[in-house]
Order: sequence, then structure tokens, then C-alpha cells
Amino acid sequence: MGEPDAKRLKTDDEAEYELIYWPGIPGRGEFVRLLFEEAGVPYQDHSRPADQAMAWVLRLTDPMNTGDDSNPPVFAAPVLKHGSLILNQTPNILIYLAPKLGLSPPPTETAFYHLNQAALTILDGFCSEVHETHHPVATSLYYEDQKEEAKKRSKAFIEERAPKFLAYVQRLLDSKTSGDGPWIHGSSLTYVDLVLFQCIDGTSYAFPKTMANLKSSGKYRAVFELYEAVKERPNIKAYLASDRRTKYADGIWRHYPELEKTIEVEVTLKE
Amino acid sequence: MGEPDAKRLKTDDEAEYELIYWPGIPGRGEFVRLLFEEAGVPYQDHSRPADQAMAWVLRLTDPMNTGDDSNPPVFAAPVLKHGSLILNQTPNILIYLAPKLGLSPPPTETAFYHLNQAALTILDGFCSEVHETHHPVATSLYYEDQKEEAKKRSKAFIEERAPKFLAYVQRLLDSKTSGDGPWIHGSSLTYVDLVLFQCIDGTSYAFPKTMANLKSSGKYRAVFELYEAVKERPNIKAYLASDRRTKYADGIWRHYPELEKTIEVEVTLKE
Repeated sequence: MGEPDAKRLKTDDEAEYELIYWPGIPGRGEFVRLLFEEAGVPYQDHSRPADQAMAWVLRLTDPMNTGDDSNPPVFAAPVLKHGSLILNQTPNILIYLAPKLGLSPPPTETAFYHLNQAALTILDGFCSEVHETHHPVATSLYYEDQKEEAKKRSKAFIEERAPKFLAYVQRLLDSKTSGDGPWIHGSSLTYVDLVLFQCIDGTSYAFPKTMANLKSSGKYRAVFELYEAVKERPNIKAYLASDRRTKYADGIWRHYPELEKTIEVEVTLKE
Repeated sequence: MGEPDAKRLKTDDEAEYELIYWPGIPGRGEFVRLLFEEAGVPYQDHSRPADQAMAWVLRLTDPMNTGDDSNPPVFAAPVLKHGSLILNQTPNILIYLAPKLGLSPPPTETAFYHLNQAALTILDGFCSEVHETHHPVATSLYYEDQKEEAKKRSKAFIEERAPKFLAYVQRLLDSKTSGDGPWIHGSSLTYVDLVLFQCIDGTSYAFPKTMANLKSSGKYRAVFELYEAVKERPNIKAYLASDRRTKYADGIWRHYPELEKTIEVEVTLKE
């Protein structure tokens, strides 16, 4: 076992991983779940039962909460608890977890930063921007109260943003740093492939016609092949078939058929 | 000099830092500049002259670019070039640079992740969401073509989002992990303080009345004290007085007086 490595992250690595997230939606909690599931690492999922999950999230994100002796307060769920360590912000949880779970090289490698930039970009395009399609005015308003603005924003997403982000991921896959096989970086699966899988899956739920059209264009073949390859990973396949996989609902990825019928929307997008 | 450290980030640490960014606006490039300026570390700023800056950005973000032997393609500026390493995504550039510049603990410390989550949250609130206030429909449209939607989004920003994010930063400063002095983490200045400074500065330019009101409420005193403290750092003070500091223009932080006059906008925000 030898001496403790002074450079090792100062946390209780043996502690159980705990995910705190809203109940009833996959949401941003799903990215964290997929890492544990692929790695086959046990974790406690506090998103069930619903009432306890709500209590967890509300306690942690309480406007009076100022954290504890070793943790600053969190802003929003998902929250990762690992022993006494408490973290939030999805891309931050991912870069903390991925090297520990064998799904990323450590921060001593430049690939760590190349993966982080890919994750941030994919999350921008297919998570944050998809949320904006149904909530372009305010998160605090009902969708029904911003439907007209949502149609305009969706038109821009369908015609410009989705193709732009898909084209970028296709270029990542065409790059030399992608290596062999279906994966984004270095010829082996990393957490970024799982992030992409969830983003494509969620966006395909929200905008099925759009994503089917984009797929059948053939321009983003490697992206959709990667999606299928992740789906066939034994641990992921078992997870998707289990009741641990939460169904889509009123979260980030929502299906409003009218948002794909944007042909009559009066927005002239520039090139 | 001894043996090379195998755990050291594999990059040419002696190489000059280069920032590639759009000309004429502070934008997201400003976060990167502030790190170099505070640390007193030389860097080459490719945002001037304008024509060369445009050529740099357009070449790097070209839709045909698939990177090189060791770098995947970048999605957008700002881009950091450090020897043969090329990185993009602002929060990613920041976590790469900050430990090297003495503005963050290394990734072996949990504080690295606590700082990253604070940076991501502050950038969400006062950079990305401020951009959305004038471009709620599409980045590719002129502001004038989405002015009505911008008024609604701005109302939500002014009444809900700005107070929510300011309250969170105030809580960060009230936390035990903030330590003594004006800084966000561990009693000493880190890159996150610089990120907050730029965000408050830019948002105060865009929404001067709003930010003046929020300041005079007294609820976020430590946030505005931190802003002033950064402004008085000798290197930052000299930088702000220099012609290296780009003036605000049509970038992320824009001043449209009509967006602060939201009283007549028909949006009823829920609690």
C-alpha cells in the first residue's frame, strides 16, 4: 500500500458516492448517473422517493444555506456528495468523478482539458440550449406563458444551433485526436461519450422529427454511430432497460410537437 | 533541475501564452486577460489588430477545421494557445491557467473543484444570461429583430436572476470556506474573484440602474466590496487604466437603456 500520495486529492475515496437531484426527471442528474452505471460503481441515488428527494434538494439549495466547515454552499442540483465533500455544477461533478471512475485521464494530462471543453460545448448545445427552446423568457414562467417566444427560439435551434453543434461533434470525431473506433477522444470510451449519448437521446425525445432529419442527412454519421455504440455498452444497456432510468417529463428535454412546426414563425435567420 | 516529473502536465510550460479572441469587445476573452494581468505574466493578445484577430478566430473556428495531431478542433473563441496546446471554452481555459499562474490550488485539492463550480455559476449568471437578455431568440438575429422578447427576458433578469445570482455569491462570501478578507475562497485572491469582478463590471455597464439599485439594497455588500477590492489590486488597476483594456461595445455586455425600462412589459413572474 505504501505511503499516502501527498498529491492525491484530499478526500475520502472509499466513501460511497451520493447523487442528490430532483425527482421525476432525468435532467442534469442523468449525466452523473451514466458515469456510475458505465463504470459499474455503486452510488446512492437520492432522487427517489420523490418527497425525500425534494427535501434533500431544497435543504441544500436553501437561500439561507452557507455551506459547512469545508464546503461552500451549492447553487443548484445535481449535487454530488462523496464522504464529506459536496460539489455541484454538472461539468464540475463530471471532471471530479471521471478520472476516479476510469472515464477520463487525470488533470495531469492535456486530454483532461480537451475532454472538459468537449463536455462543456456538448452540454451548451444539447442541454442548456434545448432548455431555452421552451423557456426563452424566464425559467420561473410556465411554458404556456412563453409559447410564442419558444416557437421562435425553437426555429433557431432547429435550423441553426442543432446543426452547428452536431457538425462540431462530427469534427471532433473526424479529428486525429479521436483515434480509432467510435469514441470522441483517444480510441477509448470516456465520460464525454456518455455526455453526448444523453444529449442526443434527450434532444431526440424533444425534437424527434428534427433529429431524424439531421440523422438522415448523413452529415453527422459518426455522431449517431457513437450514440448507438454507447447504447450497446453492456452496463448502459442494462441500465436503460432498468427502472433506474427515469422517463422524460417536464425537465430539460420536453416534447412539445408545436415547437417542431416552426414553418409559419416569422423569424428570418441570417446566414 | 532534477528529473522531469511524470505527473506534470505534458505541455511546454516555458512557452508563451497566446490569447486568440474577437477584436473590439472585452467579451469572454477578458476573463483570460485578467488572469494574466493580475499574475503579471506576459501574454500575446491576438485580438489586435482587428483584421489579424478576425483571421485568427475564423481560421481556428472554420467549419472544416478538424484540429491537428494533438489538438481537437475548437468550437469558439476565446482560444488559448500555450506552445503546441490549444484550448477553448472559457471555464476550461481558466482551470488550466489558474493553477499555473498561482491563482488556484492544483486539481489535487478539493478547492480546485469548489472554485470551478463557483466560476461556472458566476459565468452562467452574469455572462451567459446577460447575453440572453439582448439575444433571447437567436444569436444570428440582430437585437432590433428580437427587441420585444429582449424586454421580457430582461425583466426576468432584473427581477429574478440578477438578485438570485448575487445572493448566491453573497452566500459564498458568508461561508466558512471563504475565510478572512474580501475573497471568495480560502482567505486569498483566486481567479474566481477576477471572474466575479469582470461579471459585475460588465453587468453594471449593461444594466447600470439595476445594479445600482441592487448595490444600494445592502443585501449584497460583500459582493460589491470584492468588486472594489479587485479594482484596487495594483496590477489590475494599472491594466484598467491602460489601453489594453477594451471598451464595452456590441459584445456580451451591451447597454440598451430600454431594457431597464421593463415596467410596462406584460410578464407576470411567479414567485
